[in-house]
Amino acid sequence: MEEVSKRDLNPVKGTRDFSPEIQILRKKVFEKIEKIFQRYGFDPMETPIIEKWEILKGKYGEEAENRLIWRFKLPYSEKEYALRYDLTVPLARFVARFKPKLPFKRYHIGRVFRYEEPQKGRYREFWQADFDIVGAKEISADAEVLNIVIEIFEEFKFKEYKIKINDRRILRGIFEKSLQIKNFEKILSIYRIIDKLDKIGKEKVIKELEKLEIPKNSLNKINELLEISKEKNETIISYLENYQVEEISKAINDIKQILDLVYKKDVIKIDLSLVRGLDYYTAMIFEAVVSKPKIGSLAGGGRYDELIKIFTNTEIPAVGGSIGVERLIDAGLEIGIFKADKKTYSQIAIIYTLEVPIKKIFEIAKELRDYNLNVYMPLKGFNSILDGIKEISKRGIKHALIVGKKEIEENIYTLQNLETREKFKVKLEEVVKLLSV
Amino acid sequence: MEEVSKRDLNPVKGTRDFSPEIQILRKKVFEKIEKIFQRYGFDPMETPIIEKWEILKGKYGEEAENRLIWRFKLPYSEKEYALRYDLTVPLARFVARFKPKLPFKRYHIGRVFRYEEPQKGRYREFWQADFDIVGAKEISADAEVLNIVIEIFEEFKFKEYKIKINDRRILRGIFEKSLQIKNFEKILSIYRIIDKLDKIGKEKVIKELEKLEIPKNSLNKINELLEISKEKNETIISYLENYQVEEISKAINDIKQILDLVYKKDVIKIDLSLVRGLDYYTAMIFEAVVSKPKIGSLAGGGRYDELIKIFTNTEIPAVGGSIGVERLIDAGLEIGIFKADKKTYSQIAIIYTLEVPIKKIFEIAKELRDYNLNVYMPLKGFNSILDGIKEISKRGIKHALIVGKKEIEENIYTLQNLETREKFKVKLEEVVKLLSV
Repeated sequence: MEEVSKRDLNPVKGTRDFSPEIQILRKKVFEKIEKIFQRYGFDPMETPIIEKWEILKGKYGEEAENRLIWRFKLPYSEKEYALRYDLTVPLARFVARFKPKLPFKRYHIGRVFRYEEPQKGRYREFWQADFDIVGAKEISADAEVLNIVIEIFEEFKFKEYKIKINDRRILRGIFEKSLQIKNFEKILSIYRIIDKLDKIGKEKVIKELEKLEIPKNSLNKINELLEISKEKNETIISYLENYQVEEISKAINDIKQILDLVYKKDVIKIDLSLVRGLDYYTAMIFEAVVSKPKIGSLAGGGRYDELIKIFTNTEIPAVGGSIGVERLIDAGLEIGIFKADKKTYSQIAIIYTLEVPIKKIFEIAKELRDYNLNVYMPLKGFNSILDGIKEISKRGIKHALIVGKKEIEENIYTLQNLETREKFKVKLEEVVKLLSV
Repeated sequence: MEEVSKRDLNPVKGTRDFSPEIQILRKKVFEKIEKIFQRYGFDPMETPIIEKWEILKGKYGEEAENRLIWRFKLPYSEKEYALRYDLTVPLARFVARFKPKLPFKRYHIGRVFRYEEPQKGRYREFWQADFDIVGAKEISADAEVLNIVIEIFEEFKFKEYKIKINDRRILRGIFEKSLQIKNFEKILSIYRIIDKLDKIGKEKVIKELEKLEIPKNSLNKINELLEISKEKNETIISYLENYQVEEISKAINDIKQILDLVYKKDVIKIDLSLVRGLDYYTAMIFEAVVSKPKIGSLAGGGRYDELIKIFTNTEIPAVGGSIGVERLIDAGLEIGIFKADKKTYSQIAIIYTLEVPIKKIFEIAKELRDYNLNVYMPLKGFNSILDGIKEISKRGIKHALIVGKKEIEENIYTLQNLETREKFKVKLEEVVKLLSV
């Protein structure tokens, strides 16, 4: 076996190793999100990392297909494989395969893979936390999805977050019916330019739209939409109600109901420039953002009533969302609501000297562990108790049980809080109680 | 977007979809294992699914390299990638990269990928639960590893499990010094044949060994080893003590200490035919098996004092184990200690009729969820309460809160246990207490 060079120790570009300190934080964040999904009646499922290429093909648009999907063959087979690109297409395949009782509320937290140029908050391997309601056309489902997003932002105590919402039917209505742009590809191109509004500003958006050779009056209209988007929800609704286009009226009606059903109405902001990248949305779409730090959206989703049909041949409406856990964690660390300061799950370490028989230490550790304590047991004795205290303090373990020859004879031990240096004489069975204070 | 044929709905061969029923069980099993790792002072880490091919190359032997590792290039790059084949080599890379404080006790539960022919208990994508102590040469570390395995089997209430142990130094000592076979490749070939003992029986093992052109007297010796392996630990130890080979004496001394330190001595069985497939072990090796069902080993591991050096250039001893969670779950389901009978995490569903305003239901759901209950809220009202009860019972939810117009007016609801059909009149705030009884 050859030796490995230093450089090669890094993981693949755009992927990450997580040391215990970070991983303990990540697990806590995932757990809290998961608990909220469960409180909302969602159950977990899992699908493979690897999918057949045919399953992903044609679902994510041209750029993904030609540049972003991890697709490959093995030396041993002619089959084409791909690593999952999101958790939504696997869900659609799953629903078609198992035909679960509808509505099917499931969550799925796991990694997805995109061959993007890595940058802040963007990785080639990253985690998503998805939750979807499959088989419900009711607008209450849309509202429940948004309530979950609200619950998550409240749980983590994010301040000044907003959930922007829009509806693909409004966009389509305005473009097709009012602006006479019926070419779907062209509408998508316009969408993608408008989507950059936050990043590049209004002037550049208008300039890029001009390049698409859109008639002057349409440009004015889009400009008007961008302006109106800054107004209050009520103003935007009144503006849209003037349109007298059936699709737009339906969307507005839905949005009103959503606003009535969400638990925090004032975090919802109608934004007519919100389009979302993915092709498959059909009605309500949303993105959650925080004002600080500037990091892009922390969650997004919407209604996709046509996607599952590709797999099932029958129409199955669906609505869902995805928490961008990577950005959520990055943002939370930056503003200080998350801290990667817990080095270990161990609650107590046993500090013992060389003269104590290791078998006795094994017995003590067993007893403490049987009380459900997380116990770090050093694998050999220390030269002195002081050496042990220094060593264990570095590991971030708060408490030590000090075991010398005398302690064993008397069956009374010293429990020390390594932060406050406080000491207590204890019997083993008293340790649990003292630690939970 | 094209429609997908029925056949294509299956996941990639050797990979699996997990529906909520199975996933809830799997999560429970993983959690229990994880809790035990934590009780033993182990902390979590994570590494990417994708590794550079160079990292895996040369670590797993010829067969893995030419037939089993998922290795590939993307259309967009000349780099060679591989999906992780186990969690041990990524650990070695991690230790070299981060130089964590030693001894480093970490656990890692995650998927690994092997392009094997799928069969019962063998998949192309499967989960491992690894725990390792890096940087401890003390035999107490070996004993702690075995104690964790014991704890896991006890936790799940497996009966008649055994942990077979052996030591590579015994095998090497006997082969090299006593049988004069010094060619390492040949020793490995012999190992692999002996490893099949349980599967193909002693006679076939002897026959295959004959093909390797091993001298007659060596064959007799191996035969003797296989015979002696059936004896009690004490008999085997006495037999080996007669060898007077330094490496064997050291191993025997270690095994004696291990037997002294493990929490259940009687489940440990010295087995001189145990060799383990992987090349990197250097001393103690083990495998845990159950007598029923016949499914191969449910856990395995050992000491590998030379592996990490490849990455770090300095010697770092290590010992660890891997729980074969797939087989553990399959075995547990077969003997009935696991049951995939929990369909949902939801503890209660709200059953309401069409005339109840949905907004009111949203409020009730919110209140119950704020009490930390997992609440399934149907997205529209039922035609009748009876319809609702039928529907919710099918979902495996045990309790229903029945909400009609009258209940809302009086602010008193009916809580029904859908299994026993018992009913209670309750206020919302009383529901938690009644459900936890």
